[in-house]
Amino acid sequence: MNYCTRCGAKVELRIPDGDTHLRHVCAQCGEIHYLNPKLVIGCIAEWQGRILLCRRAIEPRHGFWTLPAGFMENGESTAEAAMRETREEACAGVAIEALFALVNIPHISQVHLFYRGRLLDGAFGAGEESLEASLFSEESIPWDALAFRSVALSLRAYFDDRRNGQFGFHENSLLPP
Amino acid sequence: MNYCTRCGAKVELRIPDGDTHLRHVCAQCGEIHYLNPKLVIGCIAEWQGRILLCRRAIEPRHGFWTLPAGFMENGESTAEAAMRETREEACAGVAIEALFALVNIPHISQVHLFYRGRLLDGAFGAGEESLEASLFSEESIPWDALAFRSVALSLRAYFDDRRNGQFGFHENSLLPP
Repeated sequence: MNYCTRCGAKVELRIPDGDTHLRHVCAQCGEIHYLNPKLVIGCIAEWQGRILLCRRAIEPRHGFWTLPAGFMENGESTAEAAMRETREEACAGVAIEALFALVNIPHISQVHLFYRGRLLDGAFGAGEESLEASLFSEESIPWDALAFRSVALSLRAYFDDRRNGQFGFHENSLLPP
Repeated sequence: MNYCTRCGAKVELRIPDGDTHLRHVCAQCGEIHYLNPKLVIGCIAEWQGRILLCRRAIEPRHGFWTLPAGFMENGESTAEAAMRETREEACAGVAIEALFALVNIPHISQVHLFYRGRLLDGAFGAGEESLEASLFSEESIPWDALAFRSVALSLRAYFDDRRNGQFGFHENSLLPP
């Protein structure tokens, strides 16, 4: 961050009075610009025992498989974000069941949330940011071609819970690779 | 948002190619500035059956009672944020037990998370942003003087669960008042 979003003057890095963290502060108007973690929200959507994955058509991790997921937008709820991402990336309607996993990734200041859900009618397809979408049984999940560690972690917990007959809520933190 | 944080030129509101939302886009360098919901994280900290609340020394809701909570910072985990806020606002050490509540507030683009925790040694005090801190039994909670609806909602669920002998995870959304 170089310039103030309010007045366009240069910002400087300093700890404001009464604060404990370095912030970008405008040298001209004094505006303090806070940078906060972002929520990435996705869905583990099941249909007849299989899970919906998308193959990424964009960077990072072009060509790798992932759960439909993306940055939460202003003005929506977390469950609405999970439904929107499933519609956008996999052209699928989903009924949300419950929050299943929270994955902290502090070194990139992201918090990933994954909901459990069910496809409404089994229809899906490749959205603009996907090369393809497909349903996978537990045995056919492309573990070595998954795009993100948070996805692999949450899918493993999902299949473990499903095998045990009860879904819990799972919180994890990832360290830098 | 008026100016680009990267180059300092004016931004305009438009939908970028391949996007579905209005964004602030720099008219000069083309940088797209995304605005995303913020996480507010707090703790329901118990000591000998009572809950730690702080009375706010800052706006909004100066003078009203709240759970120790605040904006999550870059570089920390959600549980670390809950511990930090409890230390900063109530001068108390807390052992985090589990995530208890998620409250969506879409009209202000916030997601509130509250953890359950236990005070480490019963010590607490008023942090810089608090007028005072105090432990409250269920019967003595100042319901009419609570600062935020997300706090009241989560505290009511907490006492319900405690009475029933089992803590769950609670997700809610608040509409504009």
